[in-house]
Amino acid sequence: MRFDIFTLFPDFFRSPLESSILGRAQTNRVLEVHAHDIRAWTSDKHHVCDDAPFGGGAGMVMKAEPVAAAIEDVLKCDAVSDAPQSEKLNAPCPVILMSPQGRRFSQKIAQELSCHSQIAILCGHYEGIDERAIDALVTDEISVGDYVLTGGEVAALTIIDAIARLVPEVLGNAESHQNDSFSHGLLEAPQYTRPQNWRGREIPPVLLSGNHAEIAKWRRRESLRRTFLRRPDLIEGVSLSKDDEKFLAQLKDEDIEYSTD
Amino acid sequence: MRFDIFTLFPDFFRSPLESSILGRAQTNRVLEVHAHDIRAWTSDKHHVCDDAPFGGGAGMVMKAEPVAAAIEDVLKCDAVSDAPQSEKLNAPCPVILMSPQGRRFSQKIAQELSCHSQIAILCGHYEGIDERAIDALVTDEISVGDYVLTGGEVAALTIIDAIARLVPEVLGNAESHQNDSFSHGLLEAPQYTRPQNWRGREIPPVLLSGNHAEIAKWRRRESLRRTFLRRPDLIEGVSLSKDDEKFLAQLKDEDIEYSTD
Repeated sequence: MRFDIFTLFPDFFRSPLESSILGRAQTNRVLEVHAHDIRAWTSDKHHVCDDAPFGGGAGMVMKAEPVAAAIEDVLKCDAVSDAPQSEKLNAPCPVILMSPQGRRFSQKIAQELSCHSQIAILCGHYEGIDERAIDALVTDEISVGDYVLTGGEVAALTIIDAIARLVPEVLGNAESHQNDSFSHGLLEAPQYTRPQNWRGREIPPVLLSGNHAEIAKWRRRESLRRTFLRRPDLIEGVSLSKDDEKFLAQLKDEDIEYSTD
Repeated sequence: MRFDIFTLFPDFFRSPLESSILGRAQTNRVLEVHAHDIRAWTSDKHHVCDDAPFGGGAGMVMKAEPVAAAIEDVLKCDAVSDAPQSEKLNAPCPVILMSPQGRRFSQKIAQELSCHSQIAILCGHYEGIDERAIDALVTDEISVGDYVLTGGEVAALTIIDAIARLVPEVLGNAESHQNDSFSHGLLEAPQYTRPQNWRGREIPPVLLSGNHAEIAKWRRRESLRRTFLRRPDLIEGVSLSKDDEKFLAQLKDEDIEYSTD
């Protein structure tokens, strides 16, 4: 899978992309990430990429032309003037603008995007990008959450991380995304590792029982309990067994702590 | 403001923290960010920080002791065994775990956290951290969104970016957070900069009128229109003028494109 990032701060991505799982995936050639400096597509000698907003106001706005020239050159396509939404750009891949205005990123969108072999990501900075460039070039706007960042770079890194780890071979044996939070619609159960007694704190006895069915049941219930207590909104989307429903009813009725004894 | 990050991948943060606004804020000594390598607090010669989960299952779990030792040492505090939630750790600052299980990060939480002079952030990796360390050490769990990342590092960077830019003096004159999306509860209006005609595309004429009241009215309406079309859920939290309500009623009734003529 290949990501092309368009940014004023390509150096931002250097160390995160060298680290850990994303670094290893690139070394193994399962993943390719290119950060393109939009400034390289300016034609003036000062490489100006921003200017004051029409109509006044604080801050600077990123100019349309360098952004368009960069994307057209790297993706080998033309931004067609006044093309309708569906035909615009005839790009070989999605061109995603990271923006608080976009659709909210989720595990489902990560899964959807992980099916593409190439994705282009445009990072805004300052007060944003000239809207005409967005109209001409962008096929999808995505927001990582309802908060404001200094630019699109952190958001781009977020979606690359979430999408790339779903690509086969990116996660090694040491990791797994089968039991992730959200992958079954529920939050994960707590995890414990050695020592069995840490500073006087014991692990739940069921985890030492060797009884796999009991352990699976305990984990499922802890998942349900956590989701019920912390994110009840998530439960609606989950398919529940009879046992699940009974346990949830118990939580609702009695508001008790579930005991593992 | 000072951030202390506890991570297995301190190098991850190098280039993002040198870039752009966060880099400049550190040079200007308005912001201090330290990434601590949890591995440095192991006592065995292989610096083992993870182990298999009790009860079986894929993946590895981060061990409690190195995490606790790192946080206690850097924050100069003790993790009290079995202390109630409110008293635990007696840390000098919030200790935030980045986790899909946490409360959902928002602009409001960014504002709340920007009032602290110091924040500690714990990044999980692999299948997570031994729950006993979380019980003993963590005062707040935050999720940046309903998606799964390879580790807490990208999420930590996200909240540092969103929080730091609200600290006075971090944003320079070139930037501003007064007109951000979400700061008034609405999405931002589109922005335009020179040239006035770009590849045959004109800017909205009102922005050339010089009539500040008309421009402000146009921007407010574009904000309302975008929020109505893209994120109607946000409108409930906004205080609306009579003019706003009239315009929204018009959008709802007629489902028409708002014209700037």
